Amino acid sequence: MNNPIKIAVDAMGGENSPNKIIEGISIHSKKNNSINYKIFGNENLILPLINKNNISNERYDIIHTESIVEDSDSALGAAKKKDSSLWLAIESLKNNSSDAIVSAGNTGALFVIAKLNLKMIENIDKPALSGLWPNKNGLNVVLDLGANIECSEKNLIDFSLMGSALHKALFENESAKVALLNVGSEETKGNNIIKNTFQTLSTKKNSLYEFHGYIEGNEIMEGKVNVIVTDGFTGNVALKTAEGTANFITTELKNALSSSIIGKISSLINFKNIKKFKDKLDPRLYNGAILLGLNKPVIKSHGSTDSLGFASSLSVCEQIIRGRLIDKIKENIN
Amino acid sequence: MNNPIKIAVDAMGGENSPNKIIEGISIHSKKNNSINYKIFGNENLILPLINKNNISNERYDIIHTESIVEDSDSALGAAKKKDSSLWLAIESLKNNSSDAIVSAGNTGALFVIAKLNLKMIENIDKPALSGLWPNKNGLNVVLDLGANIECSEKNLIDFSLMGSALHKALFENESAKVALLNVGSEETKGNNIIKNTFQTLSTKKNSLYEFHGYIEGNEIMEGKVNVIVTDGFTGNVALKTAEGTANFITTELKNALSSSIIGKISSLINFKNIKKFKDKLDPRLYNGAILLGLNKPVIKSHGSTDSLGFASSLSVCEQIIRGRLIDKIKENIN
Repeated sequence: MNNPIKIAVDAMGGENSPNKIIEGISIHSKKNNSINYKIFGNENLILPLINKNNISNERYDIIHTESIVEDSDSALGAAKKKDSSLWLAIESLKNNSSDAIVSAGNTGALFVIAKLNLKMIENIDKPALSGLWPNKNGLNVVLDLGANIECSEKNLIDFSLMGSALHKALFENESAKVALLNVGSEETKGNNIIKNTFQTLSTKKNSLYEFHGYIEGNEIMEGKVNVIVTDGFTGNVALKTAEGTANFITTELKNALSSSIIGKISSLINFKNIKKFKDKLDPRLYNGAILLGLNKPVIKSHGSTDSLGFASSLSVCEQIIRGRLIDKIKENIN
Repeated sequence: MNNPIKIAVDAMGGENSPNKIIEGISIHSKKNNSINYKIFGNENLILPLINKNNISNERYDIIHTESIVEDSDSALGAAKKKDSSLWLAIESLKNNSSDAIVSAGNTGALFVIAKLNLKMIENIDKPALSGLWPNKNGLNVVLDLGANIECSEKNLIDFSLMGSALHKALFENESAKVALLNVGSEETKGNNIIKNTFQTLSTKKNSLYEFHGYIEGNEIMEGKVNVIVTDGFTGNVALKTAEGTANFITTELKNALSSSIIGKISSLINFKNIKKFKDKLDPRLYNGAILLGLNKPVIKSHGSTDSLGFASSLSVCEQIIRGRLIDKIKENIN
C-alpha cells in the first residue's frame, strides 16, 4: 500500500461506546504509525475521550453526526437513518475515502446497510459471516456463522474460497486447508447439499487452498485444517455451543480452585500459569467477525467486548487490508 | 416392578470388549441387588472374566454365541447376522425376556437391528438419539444427536415429548423444560420448520413439560431448561463441538499447569480441587445415548468408553426402566 490505510470506525455502536471505541483506537494506534482512523459519531462525546487517551491529531478525523443506530432498531428501520454514524461510516467505503469499516453495533443493521452501499463481488451469490476460532496450531477461519440460515452448494463452494482468501490474507505463510463440517467422515454422511459440495471440492482445481474433506465438531480445534465451511445455522450453533462450553468449564474451574483455603493459596502460587492459560482462551483476542462477499471489508466487533477486544478488531482490519483480502477473492473466483 | 429387572448386554461390542463390559457389570452389580444381566457373547471369553470379577451366579445368564457384529460391518450387513450377540440381545427384548438392551458396538447396526425387531411406538414417526449433557443445575436431555439428518415439525414435536419423558423417568422430582435450539431468541429467527414447531409447542397443551421457546448454543449449559430439541445434524455437531472444546481447554490447562516446577507443585497441593473439577466434567459419567421411539429402551454406550463408562450406561438403563420411560411416552403421545 502506498497510501496510508484508512479505517472507518463507527464510534457509537455496542455497550459502553464511544468510550471503549476510542480506547481501542488508542491501544491500536500505539502498535502502528501509518493508519488513519476515520471516526464517525458525536464529536462532543468523542473529543474529550481522544484527549484523555492522548491520540495525536494527525492519526484521526472525526466525522460528526448525532444520529445513531440503536441495538433495538430493526435492520430496515436503521437503513432509513442515512445520517447515522453507521451509515456514514459505510458510505465512506463506497466513496473510497476509507478502506474498511468496523462497528460494534447492531449486526443486522450493519449487514443490511453494507449490502445496500457496497456491491457484491461478481460471481459471489451471498455474503458470509466468518470468525476466528483457536485450534491447537493457530487460528481457524470458520464460516458461515449466521448470515445465511440455508446454503446451496454454490454458497458453500464460495465460502471455501472466501474463507481461504481470508486465512491467506491473515497468515500468508500458511496453507489454507478447507474442510466441510459434517456428522461423520465417510462420503455417504450428511445431506445432499453437503455431499454434492464434497464432490465438487474434491475435483475442482484451485491454487488458493487444499480440500481436506469432512470434519466433525470435535475436530474443529484439532488444527489439522484451518478453514471450516458450514451453513449459517450450523456454524452459529457450533460457535455459540463452544462459547457456552468454555464458559461452563472456566466457571467450574474457578469454583473448584476457590472452594478451599488450600485451593486459593495454590492458585495464587500458580497465578502466572493460570494467566497464560486464560490468555490463550481470551475471546477478546479473537474478536472481530468478517462479512465476506462485498467489495470492501466489513468487520463486526462483538457488542459487549471492551477496548482490548475492539483493538483486536482493528488489528483484523489492518491485517486484511495489508493482506489484500478482496483482491485475493477476486483473483480466485470464476 | 414386581419382577427383577433384566438388562440384555451385548458383551462383544466396542473397544476392549468383553473385558470392559464384564467389569462394567461388576461395578454396577455392586450398587444394586435386584438386577439380572443377560450377557450375550462368547462364553469362553466371558466366563473367565466373570470369575475374575467375582460376579455371583444368580446375577447373570450367559447366552453363548460366536457370531459378532464388527465395527466395520455395514448396518445392513450386520442385520444378516441373525445369530450375533447384538441380534440375539435385541431379540430378547422382542420376546419380553429382557427389559432393555445396552451395546457399546456398531451404532448403525444397533439402530437398524433394533428397528427391525422392536416396533415403533404408535404415532411416533422417527426414533431419535438422545444424550445427557451437564448444565449448571444438573443434566440436560438433548435430542436428536444424529439419528435423523433432516427433521419435520412433527418429528421435533415428538422429540419434545420423548425427551421430556426421558427427563422425567431419570429425574422424577424435576419439571421437564423444553427449548428449541436456534440461532436467536426472537420468534422470527430460524427456518420455517423451527418457526412452525415453535408455534405449535406454544399452543399445544400437555402435562409432561413446559415449553420455554428458543435457546442459542451458548445457553445449553446454563440450566434454565433441561430438554433441548434439535434436528440430528445440528445436535450431532453441537455435541461434538462441545466435546472438542472441553478437550481443547483441559489439554491447554494441563499444559499450563505442568509447564513449570511451581506449576507442578501447586497443582499437587491443589489436587483434590482439580479432581473435583475433573470429576464433574468426566464424560464417562454421562455415557449412554438412548434411542427413543421404539417399544423398548435401547441404550448405546460409547465404543471407546471404559468399564466405569459402561457401568454408567447400565445405570441409565436401570433408571429408565424404574422410571417407566416407555409408559410415560405412550401415555402422553396422541
